[in-house]
Amino acid sequence: MALVARKLVTIIAEGFLEERLVREIKRLGAKGYTITEARGEGSRGVRASEWEGGNIRLETIVSPEVAEKILAHLAEIYFPNYAVIAYVETVEVVRGDKYT
Amino acid sequence: MALVARKLVTIIAEGFLEERLVREIKRLGAKGYTITEARGEGSRGVRASEWEGGNIRLETIVSPEVAEKILAHLAEIYFPNYAVIAYVETVEVVRGDKYT
Amino acid sequence: MALVARKLVTIIAEGFLEERLVREIKRLGAKGYTITEARGEGSRGVRASEWEGGNIRLETIVSPEVAEKILAHLAEIYFPNYAVIAYVETVEVVRGDKYT
Repeated sequence: MALVARKLVTIIAEGFLEERLVREIKRLGAKGYTITEARGEGSRGVRASEWEGGNIRLETIVSPEVAEKILAHLAEIYFPNYAVIAYVETVEVVRGDKYT
Repeated sequence: MALVARKLVTIIAEGFLEERLVREIKRLGAKGYTITEARGEGSRGVRASEWEGGNIRLETIVSPEVAEKILAHLAEIYFPNYAVIAYVETVEVVRGDKYT
Repeated sequence: MALVARKLVTIIAEGFLEERLVREIKRLGAKGYTITEARGEGSRGVRASEWEGGNIRLETIVSPEVAEKILAHLAEIYFPNYAVIAYVETVEVVRGDKYT
């Protein structure tokens, strides 16, 4: 079975950012996303449980180009102002055409 | 400490498929799995919140052979009919014998 | 944009271990962590739903050295006594200084 490499971008953010983040990653090229509710503590020492609504863990599978755009956007707009974490991995998927 | 490479298969699917998917991945060789509740939107534009029960995010750590079988099974049975996403990564585990 | 490689350590454990695990990974060098509620079944055939409080899925992004310490600690203290799963992957992050 032919597997195709794509980038999995995972974003951990405060819950109130969900709608905005979803709109922005779609604008940057993401065709889909998965969200799970999360909590935790970041390098700033802030526990998510202290924020209303907790954290979200947002995943999206995209092309390397779209992953780069999403990370650059997060680095510019979010990292200076919000306790946002983002990381990228290479994953293999069966049907690459479902993604960007 | 000796680390062993295994495959982490992640499946995002509608919640009502959980019991069936768990039974099938075990039949194909998975010894364990982890499920988190999820929601999201796929390339078909369907939000999980519109489905009763939301989505699940199912993870299982298996051998490359079992990962291949699981993906082939999903591609044959699920991808044509359901909004299922699946991706594979290589991970390192401490004790390989806990997995297939 | 410059990306930096770090290790993503994921630990699946019984929920009652959360506070202790968080304290220990921080002592070993983790600066932050993310937790999602999980359930599942391991190689011992025990379903998480049979445990009070279910499972947790704990993620932390650390240096290779800290990842090694965390895995060695888990292997020594937890694996013989608890149904704990742990795996490591290499991920790319934007700002390496947020992590160890």
